[in-house]
Amino acid sequence: MPESTPFSTLSHLECPKCGAQLDAAVVQGTCSCGSPLLARYDLAAARGMAVAGREATLWRYHEVLPVASPSAVISLGEGMTPLLPLPVHGKRLGVPDLWMKDEGLIPTGSFKARGAAVGVSRAAELGVRGIAMPTNGNAGAAWALYAARAGIRSLIAMPVDAPVITRAECVAAGAELYLVDGLISHAGALIREALKQRPDYQDVSTLKEPYRIEGKKTMGYEIVEQLGMRAPDVILYPTGGGVGLIGIHKALDEMREMGWLNPETRLVAVQAEGCRPIVDAWQAGATESVAPAAPTTVAFGINVPKPLGDFLILRALAETSGTAVAVTDEELLAAQQELARDEGTFVCPEGAACFAALVRLRESGWLNGGERVVVLNTGTGVKYPDTVRVSVPTVPADGALPGPR
Amino acid sequence: MPESTPFSTLSHLECPKCGAQLDAAVVQGTCSCGSPLLARYDLAAARGMAVAGREATLWRYHEVLPVASPSAVISLGEGMTPLLPLPVHGKRLGVPDLWMKDEGLIPTGSFKARGAAVGVSRAAELGVRGIAMPTNGNAGAAWALYAARAGIRSLIAMPVDAPVITRAECVAAGAELYLVDGLISHAGALIREALKQRPDYQDVSTLKEPYRIEGKKTMGYEIVEQLGMRAPDVILYPTGGGVGLIGIHKALDEMREMGWLNPETRLVAVQAEGCRPIVDAWQAGATESVAPAAPTTVAFGINVPKPLGDFLILRALAETSGTAVAVTDEELLAAQQELARDEGTFVCPEGAACFAALVRLRESGWLNGGERVVVLNTGTGVKYPDTVRVSVPTVPADGALPGPR
Repeated sequence: MPESTPFSTLSHLECPKCGAQLDAAVVQGTCSCGSPLLARYDLAAARGMAVAGREATLWRYHEVLPVASPSAVISLGEGMTPLLPLPVHGKRLGVPDLWMKDEGLIPTGSFKARGAAVGVSRAAELGVRGIAMPTNGNAGAAWALYAARAGIRSLIAMPVDAPVITRAECVAAGAELYLVDGLISHAGALIREALKQRPDYQDVSTLKEPYRIEGKKTMGYEIVEQLGMRAPDVILYPTGGGVGLIGIHKALDEMREMGWLNPETRLVAVQAEGCRPIVDAWQAGATESVAPAAPTTVAFGINVPKPLGDFLILRALAETSGTAVAVTDEELLAAQQELARDEGTFVCPEGAACFAALVRLRESGWLNGGERVVVLNTGTGVKYPDTVRVSVPTVPADGALPGPR
Repeated sequence: MPESTPFSTLSHLECPKCGAQLDAAVVQGTCSCGSPLLARYDLAAARGMAVAGREATLWRYHEVLPVASPSAVISLGEGMTPLLPLPVHGKRLGVPDLWMKDEGLIPTGSFKARGAAVGVSRAAELGVRGIAMPTNGNAGAAWALYAARAGIRSLIAMPVDAPVITRAECVAAGAELYLVDGLISHAGALIREALKQRPDYQDVSTLKEPYRIEGKKTMGYEIVEQLGMRAPDVILYPTGGGVGLIGIHKALDEMREMGWLNPETRLVAVQAEGCRPIVDAWQAGATESVAPAAPTTVAFGINVPKPLGDFLILRALAETSGTAVAVTDEELLAAQQELARDEGTFVCPEGAACFAALVRLRESGWLNGGERVVVLNTGTGVKYPDTVRVSVPTVPADGALPGPR
């Protein structure tokens, strides 16, 4: 690539709903029409980027990331997580060419670190001095920790039912943390109200700033690079706010536009039966979702009743000939343990939902078993101690273990 | 390197106490003299290994690892964890050239994965059908999960006080798990007794098989590679069983013997005041340690009263002009939060102990502040939810957050 190619080829922001174009050199939220904004790049300049020899983090794709200066990068070593072959489990499920992108191996143990790394880096680069957000736990922990590394403040509100460990992460990071006796949507309303008194904070709620999605899209770039510059046939993604799915769709589009490949990847949104607004909208042929009355699932990260980017999720499914599937909590918890026994990897319940969904898709014939399938595991199972029922004997210090079973 | 160089250059096993040489092609435990065994390689053949373009896992050093066949490698993507600069915290502590090797970004969230990956791979390659071990939690979780991936059985015994999440990992992996109302030493005695009835299991207790240390030593190779083939001046290591410290010492020796560099790295063993057998032995000028009467520390992974490899740990400190330091639980917990606020990384209490030790070493003048110092953070903080005291307000769903502080 020519030496003149800048560190970032970011050109402007674009509204995917009304088409408006906005200045990317200043802090932006959503479009005046209410839609999330998407970052656009000079892809003709970026297309020659030679990533092969670069460091194993998401910053290897810096030309298609929004941070203008290398010195503004706030990094904890995030990205280039393993793409694991799952031959035993794949054979069991009738999908022998099965792979898992393991986002358990990332700072904070959750793929939320990608959005936080890029979002915080760009916010701080543009002069933001504090970030505020509602969260189902992991995003708040990640943004609070990256904010600490950037030396900016954070205000976080999460449901009392969010994973307990994420409270400790926020507190350790020095965040201003509040628990909310309700859902993430209630926490969002509280944050919006609080921001009226805090003009120096940016609202970094899901898709209310344009750069979290840029961090998440790197999962798409990495999967393609790790498969030898080939896109998989299918990607399954546990869908709450859907930022990762929208991001992967965007990455595939960018790679197509840069002439790297012509992906025909079908994207699948996986949800829990207890909170399935995208699945319902997809099945109804709608372009937006409707919040369920009383959403609930053990896979707390996908307990999002009304994602702001619902129309972008549904568009991604439609444009890629994908689909949407819901599974029960019982199914996803069983899948979590079956996968651990088959392959030695302990995934989060959201990731486990995708393996349960694979069974459904294989049974319905939507998958014929010949596809190369990648499941996104969005985090480590160790953040969810209550998903595994432990019932084992306690032995006295001077006792004895039972004989062989 | 010549095409004839084998995947592994393993030649034999050697006793570091009596000098005996043993066959590495069959399953081995300890030496008949009771000492752990060390793997030896044909380093003249391995010295030309060109690792730069290889995959970002510990297997990039396969010539100096014991697994003979690439097909025998059991991997979950472990290794090449980030080496993070800590400029803010380093400046605060008066050690501006401070780095952290972050073993939170590894399968199971603990550096125990390295020993398990290499140990299980080699055990399965040699025909072992089951592994058995006592553990303070993380090692058992790692070995159980890698055993599952290898398709072999696992028998694990851990103190009831071990991190609760590690129980879930063992159970998810399908391990046969027992809790012990005592210390890891009691769990070890129970395992030894149980193994008499299970001749088809290998005892993989710390240093009772030769290959865990080979997995751990890769931390030394990685640190040097990540610093541009230069060894740091000082490495601080939280010391329980001490396998990682022994392994890093071995790696530095191997790199010296291969002519890669001439490291003058001083190694520091960090312990908790509540369990400081190595520190006591070091200060007394002894070559072996004595178990304390009632060992206790919140940094549970280093609550090891009498490490089998104590003489190797003390030898590593002496040979490298290193030292041993103990810190209180209060100091290490404070260090954990201070680091998170300064740098955005939430480390385990064992890793935090090293940052507390840095303060001591700087105050005593053992460090003058001009050194390049690497701290080993052995795992993610998220496995230890109780180390951070969380006291935050809960707000009703229709309530309001307080104004700016």
